[in-house]
Amino acid sequence: MSAQKPSIPKGTRDFNAEVLAKRYYIFDTIKKVFVKYGFQPIETPTLENLSTLMGKYGEEGDRLLFKILNSGDFLKNASQLTDYKKLTYEISEKGLRYDLTVPFARYVVMHQNEIAFPFKRYQIQPVWRGDSPQHGRYREFYQCDADVIGTNSLVCEAELIQIYDEVFAKLGIPVTIKINNRKILQGLSEVIQAPDKLIDITIAIDKLDKIAWEGVEKELVEKGLSVQACEKIKQFISLNADDLEYFFEENEIGKKGAEEIRTVLHLLKNIETVNQIEIDYSLARGLNYYTGCILEVKAKNVKMGSIGGGGRYDDLTGFFGLKGMSGVGISFGADRIYDVLEELQLFPDLSGNQTKVLIVTFDHENLLYAMPILRKMRDFNIHAELYPEPTKIKKQMDYANKRRIPYAVLIGSEEMQIGKLTFKNMVTGEQEKLYAEEIMQKLMN
Amino acid sequence: MSAQKPSIPKGTRDFNAEVLAKRYYIFDTIKKVFVKYGFQPIETPTLENLSTLMGKYGEEGDRLLFKILNSGDFLKNASQLTDYKKLTYEISEKGLRYDLTVPFARYVVMHQNEIAFPFKRYQIQPVWRGDSPQHGRYREFYQCDADVIGTNSLVCEAELIQIYDEVFAKLGIPVTIKINNRKILQGLSEVIQAPDKLIDITIAIDKLDKIAWEGVEKELVEKGLSVQACEKIKQFISLNADDLEYFFEENEIGKKGAEEIRTVLHLLKNIETVNQIEIDYSLARGLNYYTGCILEVKAKNVKMGSIGGGGRYDDLTGFFGLKGMSGVGISFGADRIYDVLEELQLFPDLSGNQTKVLIVTFDHENLLYAMPILRKMRDFNIHAELYPEPTKIKKQMDYANKRRIPYAVLIGSEEMQIGKLTFKNMVTGEQEKLYAEEIMQKLMN
Repeated sequence: MSAQKPSIPKGTRDFNAEVLAKRYYIFDTIKKVFVKYGFQPIETPTLENLSTLMGKYGEEGDRLLFKILNSGDFLKNASQLTDYKKLTYEISEKGLRYDLTVPFARYVVMHQNEIAFPFKRYQIQPVWRGDSPQHGRYREFYQCDADVIGTNSLVCEAELIQIYDEVFAKLGIPVTIKINNRKILQGLSEVIQAPDKLIDITIAIDKLDKIAWEGVEKELVEKGLSVQACEKIKQFISLNADDLEYFFEENEIGKKGAEEIRTVLHLLKNIETVNQIEIDYSLARGLNYYTGCILEVKAKNVKMGSIGGGGRYDDLTGFFGLKGMSGVGISFGADRIYDVLEELQLFPDLSGNQTKVLIVTFDHENLLYAMPILRKMRDFNIHAELYPEPTKIKKQMDYANKRRIPYAVLIGSEEMQIGKLTFKNMVTGEQEKLYAEEIMQKLMN
Repeated sequence: MSAQKPSIPKGTRDFNAEVLAKRYYIFDTIKKVFVKYGFQPIETPTLENLSTLMGKYGEEGDRLLFKILNSGDFLKNASQLTDYKKLTYEISEKGLRYDLTVPFARYVVMHQNEIAFPFKRYQIQPVWRGDSPQHGRYREFYQCDADVIGTNSLVCEAELIQIYDEVFAKLGIPVTIKINNRKILQGLSEVIQAPDKLIDITIAIDKLDKIAWEGVEKELVEKGLSVQACEKIKQFISLNADDLEYFFEENEIGKKGAEEIRTVLHLLKNIETVNQIEIDYSLARGLNYYTGCILEVKAKNVKMGSIGGGGRYDDLTGFFGLKGMSGVGISFGADRIYDVLEELQLFPDLSGNQTKVLIVTFDHENLLYAMPILRKMRDFNIHAELYPEPTKIKKQMDYANKRRIPYAVLIGSEEMQIGKLTFKNMVTGEQEKLYAEEIMQKLMN
């Protein structure tokens, strides 16, 4: 076979130890908080039936889903070979997980008899989307979600806000936690007498940060809203909480939304948060399955989109035949959090899992002599390596430096004779002759 | 949309919190040992180019690879629509990771300039194979590998044996670690003058455990070996180490294999192992890329195939243009280890991440009162939950029991009045009235 120059598919990544340590620091920080708040982990398969996934993410989602070619003679069920769209579903039955929410809904329905409701679950797994790769957008990336399903209690919203607060406090990222309610947006669409335009309005308002009011207004007009309606929307997004009551005086659903926000804040009244919680009526969140409270987290002092978001959705399991299950969840944007921590230089020292000492030898006798010493180090839980060949010392030292191993132990014939080994600090260059036990004592400190 | 009864693809699994805790116990135990021995983690994408994967796993592997349908109009590059095999590679460019070894080789070649050689990496990630699902065989399962690449030092073999020994000692599973060398098997094929039959011989010998000598002999004869050759093979597999020297007196490669085994054992001479290390000349391991030492781990006292295996392979990166890289690696069979731990009841108490206390309330006032107490508990790192609705007490207690939460704190109007909360042991049923601080003190012990 001739040699290939290897590559990986665009939008995918290899991760080395250094990057993984940082990624796992993020995941572990989040996990610890989830668990403290009573969330339990689940994992679902990478492969899901297309019947589970299709129609849940809109037309674009259906297109961006990665689909698996059926095994064996996949053409035998093909009815025609000209319309590739139609053919897709004749030669493909399975797809890759596109988000964690739909598999979660599927999981809840399939395992409803084993689950104690309200079910608080978290899930940290990769998802795949055939998006055009671009800066900071990948085709394979992790999502990191916590959801509560089976209760409409606003205690959940209050708890999820605290989770956001605590996770970002632990990570050291100052954030603003924004809160809004879809019922308020629905109320707005009713007040301006365009209830059928709710999704258009929310999608447009959601972009306020990116395209400013002028851009939003342009989009609203294009969607068929009147100038008066636009004026009313503009007035709405600058309202304070008290004015909101007045705005929705005669609209039930809007009033309900305002009330829900008040309740959430009331539940948090006697709880100190590290980060700022802010009501933002322009917050809409793109996904149209949200029906109640919506949340979004933005990092302060950094130019970056939201690093977390979520909300309440009624009836997510309805797709799969289980009605009346209200759920609320949040998601952490792990890749963006990574970039923020990097930019603000907030990653702590993560060298704990690295090798602490390299044993360097000069011949096969030294190697043999080193083996039980190495073992003893490891028995004391010292992360230790032996350079596997008694090759040139420079080569062995280069390895230690490249791997950032802070100490080396040199074993030559002299060391074997006197029983004292050369212990070298790779950072300062200092070295001294010590008994193996003394070295281990030093390495354990 | 009409409701669907949801399901997952055959050969895939959902994991709940209880199972995940056990799985992560296995992975974490293995990881800790890997890291102590100086192995660094990497992760590679789930999606690899088919050009990377094809031709590396034999014809069956090519067939069992899960292939991703190209995005967009995948038919536009199709030259014909009758031969599905040929069509496959015209409409599919990417596949799912099939093992961790080939992506590792691809990684080493792509990142050779950043890597410090010898490169010791570990990798714990899922792989996918379109096998017929059957008991204990899945289409999506985790592999758990450690490899050293860039040295042919037998120190690596000696270290990998110690890793097996230590991991299974930590898990409490008594095992036999079997060792053999492909060079010995190659020598054998030369001694019986059938060097072209090496793979047939190793595949047949590998089945000795399952189909006994009669079955092996039958297979060898079918593969065209003479009765004399079979006799010689039968004699060989019962040889002890000393006889082996004599057997290979006039065969270079066989002698080299015997010598390598001796060196590995010599390197381990002054190291105490918990488990038995055993030379087994019938050990062959199926994969034909092994060229030196081969290893296999079998659990004692349990009927179960091997729970670990590995070996040395020369030139694995040659596929991708990087020649002369010798590697040696081991793999842990996580699913089988899980089953062994379950069967021998060896899983420790893994409830550390579960919720310790549930706060139960009777009305909305109680809920509000509970919020800061709950927060305080969490600030003391007590895993705590508040039942989010002040519903019937039986329902809340059922939740605590179903979730196996060991303590409950009841907050009613009386509790709010006197400032003492009802603290209930859910196992014994005992309860007492205590100040919140006293309860936290108890929960922290």
